[in-house]
Amino acid sequence: MPERIGFIGLGIMGKPMALRLLQLGCELSVHSRSRPPIDELIAAGARDGTLPKGVAEQSDIVITMLPDSPEVREVVLGRNGVVEGARSGQLAIDMSTISPLVSHDEIAPALAGVGVKALDAPVSGGQRGAIDGTLSIMVGGPRDAFERAMPVLQAMGKNIVHIGEEPGTGQTAKACNQIIVGATIMAVAEALTLARKAGVDVAKVREALLGGFAQSRILDVHGQRMIERTFEPGFRIKLHHKDLNIALAAGGAYGSPLGETAIVREALGAMVARGDGDLDHSALIQLVESLAGLSVS
Amino acid sequence: MPERIGFIGLGIMGKPMALRLLQLGCELSVHSRSRPPIDELIAAGARDGTLPKGVAEQSDIVITMLPDSPEVREVVLGRNGVVEGARSGQLAIDMSTISPLVSHDEIAPALAGVGVKALDAPVSGGQRGAIDGTLSIMVGGPRDAFERAMPVLQAMGKNIVHIGEEPGTGQTAKACNQIIVGATIMAVAEALTLARKAGVDVAKVREALLGGFAQSRILDVHGQRMIERTFEPGFRIKLHHKDLNIALAAGGAYGSPLGETAIVREALGAMVARGDGDLDHSALIQLVESLAGLSVS
Repeated sequence: MPERIGFIGLGIMGKPMALRLLQLGCELSVHSRSRPPIDELIAAGARDGTLPKGVAEQSDIVITMLPDSPEVREVVLGRNGVVEGARSGQLAIDMSTISPLVSHDEIAPALAGVGVKALDAPVSGGQRGAIDGTLSIMVGGPRDAFERAMPVLQAMGKNIVHIGEEPGTGQTAKACNQIIVGATIMAVAEALTLARKAGVDVAKVREALLGGFAQSRILDVHGQRMIERTFEPGFRIKLHHKDLNIALAAGGAYGSPLGETAIVREALGAMVARGDGDLDHSALIQLVESLAGLSVS
Repeated sequence: MPERIGFIGLGIMGKPMALRLLQLGCELSVHSRSRPPIDELIAAGARDGTLPKGVAEQSDIVITMLPDSPEVREVVLGRNGVVEGARSGQLAIDMSTISPLVSHDEIAPALAGVGVKALDAPVSGGQRGAIDGTLSIMVGGPRDAFERAMPVLQAMGKNIVHIGEEPGTGQTAKACNQIIVGATIMAVAEALTLARKAGVDVAKVREALLGGFAQSRILDVHGQRMIERTFEPGFRIKLHHKDLNIALAAGGAYGSPLGETAIVREALGAMVARGDGDLDHSALIQLVESLAGLSVS
């Protein structure tokens, strides 16, 4: 790739995404909150950007992959942030899952102020998708910026959709994704728990339902995890809880009440409160089971 | 088919199912609450069973396809019911969607008392699936009865799964199906309404989400109906409301609280209360939209 890439945020998702860019021969500068993944990326051929500002100075395209809105605000707009090192003509791609309003009202305008075009490009597909380069990527922002970003995004994802020209539209699509995924997981958990309490073979139920209108990737993959009791993430409950907080806040801001989503958010929050936030979101079935008086295994 | 079939209940689902049996050359006796579909079936080659008792007397296998538990109770156990005309060695297949407890505690034992084996075999796939013979069929009851029923079921369905030997297990699987379908429809409705209120292209959101973990047959088919505003059933809201009442009652009886399902039931009930019970269940988006202050089109 001819353009120099900067990558900020080398967590469970960001590290494998950055490694894929290196494997494709990118000239890469990196920064992260903790040191070990930086050293790992340097060993693999990346340059240490020292701070977000330094990464921006050494790059044509700056990618951020951070936990939530406050971290993106800090890294992009804060002291020694991307904006301080940026120059006109650069492109910034925020692949974090954050509030669509923060993307639209804060990040994109601040970058525009220094001549940098912004894309919000949150992903779906989890750590496995990040490692394999098969993430789904939902992109908001100007079409020319989307086209410029395409070769970089294609290194990390497969199903890459330009949702709209307006900043934040990618984040809105991701919020929609998390609403549907969360509600489907909880519905599968309620259905399989009812079946179990009724003395019915839950594997048979899953099999029968996959052939009809209840079919979903969640029933297939997460239903199987619930049956096999494999709750290593995957995607952590505490992150899905955060994502539904974003969705409900967006619903509040845009005037779109989300009653079912609120129930799912509360259930995820209950799991976080009892110390299960680091389990895969399919472990939501444990909450349904405890309501049903089943001991959790 | 060598065995004589009786078919009771010639409604929106029962009539096309009975017609398929005739097309496959079955010797068929029929009964229904109203006269016109009986005459239609007679014109197509069926015999008038006059009453459920008469249908049972003229058949080796008696199929019922009725609206809800009270109708099945009446037709099977009531005056001039199936039990009165039944004899040892017959098979009864209830393809209605009713309470698993009624199947287990009332219908199967009463039939066993006159030497008749019972299957509960509720279906999924709607009127289209009934016409095309592509229904999903979830079957509870003894394995030998299931095997005997197979040629008959294969005339009406494609994905036919024996859920368990215990009566009612097919109904439990169907309740699980309706839980997941209802919750997914409501989640898609909330997601697409949020997107619309945020000014985002809902068709793009559907497209992007179909490529990831939010994929489901509901997002595909019912999501498209919501976008195109085509709300002719399909599957009627009032029937889905009835089915979730069954699911929640079963949850109560088996001690399995269903918090998300309750929210969806209430939403479907609100649609019924405002006179929209005959629309397709994808029209649930109209309720979400009215909460969001959007006028319904």
